[in-house]
Amino acid sequence: MKAIVHVVLKKDVLDPQGKAVEAALRTLGFGEVAEVRQGKFFEITLDGHRDDASARLDRMCEELLANPVIEDYRITIPDA
Amino acid sequence: MKAIVHVVLKKDVLDPQGKAVEAALRTLGFGEVAEVRQGKFFEITLDGHRDDASARLDRMCEELLANPVIEDYRITIPDA
Repeated sequence: MKAIVHVVLKKDVLDPQGKAVEAALRTLGFGEVAEVRQGKFFEITLDGHRDDASARLDRMCEELLANPVIEDYRITIPDA
Repeated sequence: MKAIVHVVLKKDVLDPQGKAVEAALRTLGFGEVAEVRQGKFFEITLDGHRDDASARLDRMCEELLANPVIEDYRITIPDA
């Protein structure tokens, strides 16, 4: 089975990478750009099917994929 | 309006970051992890509504957000 995990900085945390992209897009002539926030995502392929997959993915996020202090994460299991 | 742009390495391009996360998850006891691919995404807020928004986003990807030689990108406009 497959899962997608999105990790993004919490709303109140400054996102310098996003700000840089935002400024660069405006410089390139895309004046309609109001804001850019950048995040990362993971496409995770899991062997077999476990009933506790969602709980396990949650633990993966807490332990490795995200920094819960400054980041939010969202788990999507497309074919669940 | 809002748009989400996902950028991910093409299938045939090695993803060392994904491989590192994959190995780390297994080391942490998540033996069910078969593969991890890592990508990035941008949440872009655009001023007003333009009919050519989708074409403009395409150009943003080609010019800045993605490297079309090694990366694929996908544009989603949630409320379109």
